[in-house]
Amino acid sequence: MLITSPANPRIKAVVGLRRRRTREAERRTVVEGHEELSLALEAGVVPELVLVCPELMADGVLDEVLARADELAVETVQASRAAFEKAAYREGPDGVLAVVPTTRRRPAELTLPPDALVLVCEGVEKPGNLGAVLRTAEAAGVDAVVAADPVTDWGNPNTVRASKGTVFSVPVAAEGTEATLDWLDGHGIPLVAATPDTDALHTSVDYRGPVAIAVGTEKTGLTDLVLGRATHRVRIPMAGRVNSLNVATSAAIIVYEAVRQRGRGR
Amino acid sequence: MLITSPANPRIKAVVGLRRRRTREAERRTVVEGHEELSLALEAGVVPELVLVCPELMADGVLDEVLARADELAVETVQASRAAFEKAAYREGPDGVLAVVPTTRRRPAELTLPPDALVLVCEGVEKPGNLGAVLRTAEAAGVDAVVAADPVTDWGNPNTVRASKGTVFSVPVAAEGTEATLDWLDGHGIPLVAATPDTDALHTSVDYRGPVAIAVGTEKTGLTDLVLGRATHRVRIPMAGRVNSLNVATSAAIIVYEAVRQRGRGR
Repeated sequence: MLITSPANPRIKAVVGLRRRRTREAERRTVVEGHEELSLALEAGVVPELVLVCPELMADGVLDEVLARADELAVETVQASRAAFEKAAYREGPDGVLAVVPTTRRRPAELTLPPDALVLVCEGVEKPGNLGAVLRTAEAAGVDAVVAADPVTDWGNPNTVRASKGTVFSVPVAAEGTEATLDWLDGHGIPLVAATPDTDALHTSVDYRGPVAIAVGTEKTGLTDLVLGRATHRVRIPMAGRVNSLNVATSAAIIVYEAVRQRGRGR
Repeated sequence: MLITSPANPRIKAVVGLRRRRTREAERRTVVEGHEELSLALEAGVVPELVLVCPELMADGVLDEVLARADELAVETVQASRAAFEKAAYREGPDGVLAVVPTTRRRPAELTLPPDALVLVCEGVEKPGNLGAVLRTAEAAGVDAVVAADPVTDWGNPNTVRASKGTVFSVPVAAEGTEATLDWLDGHGIPLVAATPDTDALHTSVDYRGPVAIAVGTEKTGLTDLVLGRATHRVRIPMAGRVNSLNVATSAAIIVYEAVRQRGRGR
């Protein structure tokens, strides 16, 4: 099948997935790019549709994508450059795009190991930050990432893109902040909250055993709800004037201190 | 003075600073945004020109900016919305923009303390990454950041923006890779190079005393030139499949391990 018109209903359906409401109602999102699709497939994602534009693709990529889609019995549709560029959200698309199912998991649906390392991101606004947090979480072997009261969603195409496909391999969930705290309590998981308003350094806490690390937004940090119920409040030492690291950077520094203590290095 | 036309020569001069060649030839760049300008001023930067658009500014900001500019005897020019939006490179500008001098320092011009902590970023391409590295460097109290064979420049408006003004407070320099290594050698500063191709973890090295940490590009890492001359090669433990942290994240994890060991936490 070849789509030549940007007004084709299937192209329009892909474009519609730019809206969070549509993504959440349809429980699907878009993965764009050959590398990102490969990572999603490795993580076990089965697309509902693969859209390709041979004209935009590098040598050999079309054959590889068609073979993978064929293995998984996934429908593949070719699009003209005009139609593909309408569906793509990136500048300079590489001719590969897929519609994939998303799971809107709640923390209660996650399975945790006894010594779980959990990351809680409260109120994160920028999809790029959420994606960056996920790359770190995957590298560090974090067992679950929970978005508490998130302003963006895991299915946001920019989250998917910034995550380099790790949104499909790291167990993620979304939930209200209070319910997230209750869930941690229910599992007896102590909570380490990052905040500038404490004397305790992030390196002063024992992260061996089950532990959750919470980070908030760049502007306002964690809410009083989280800070009030935290087992430990810790701060990252800051020498400078700006006094605010990017949320993904803060998460990386604390999570890797936990990795160091837990001796997970391989 | 009020500029109403987007074709005004002063507006065009600001737009011209989007080109690296122009920034480097004129030794000036653009700081956009009220917060960013405030940080630059705090760092001691004296703008050559402040451009404001009262219509776009939040309450009270105009008076504050005019007072600061007056104190520093900096020329202030008002622009119509159309003219300002032509000069601005952001979407949704906040009505504040300044032209500031840049210093194109080489490492040899930097003054280092005896136990210097230096960060070397080789070949970094994305201005946003360079800016993020700088925020981390400032927070961690890094003494100097050297861009070795950089693909972007410190004056790139997106670097300035992503750095939240720290590009003006952290000592930065740019230099060829070989000359950067010679400079480190000349100061007797050992070099710790981040690479996936080693068994040594980043936590296995002693960072007390003078030390330089080198990170490369996300795609290809550090060049053989740097790896060959490094005192230590270290890797960040990675549990996942993606095997690549963002360059700013990698830098943050290693630099904060150095901070931990050096007991710089305040």
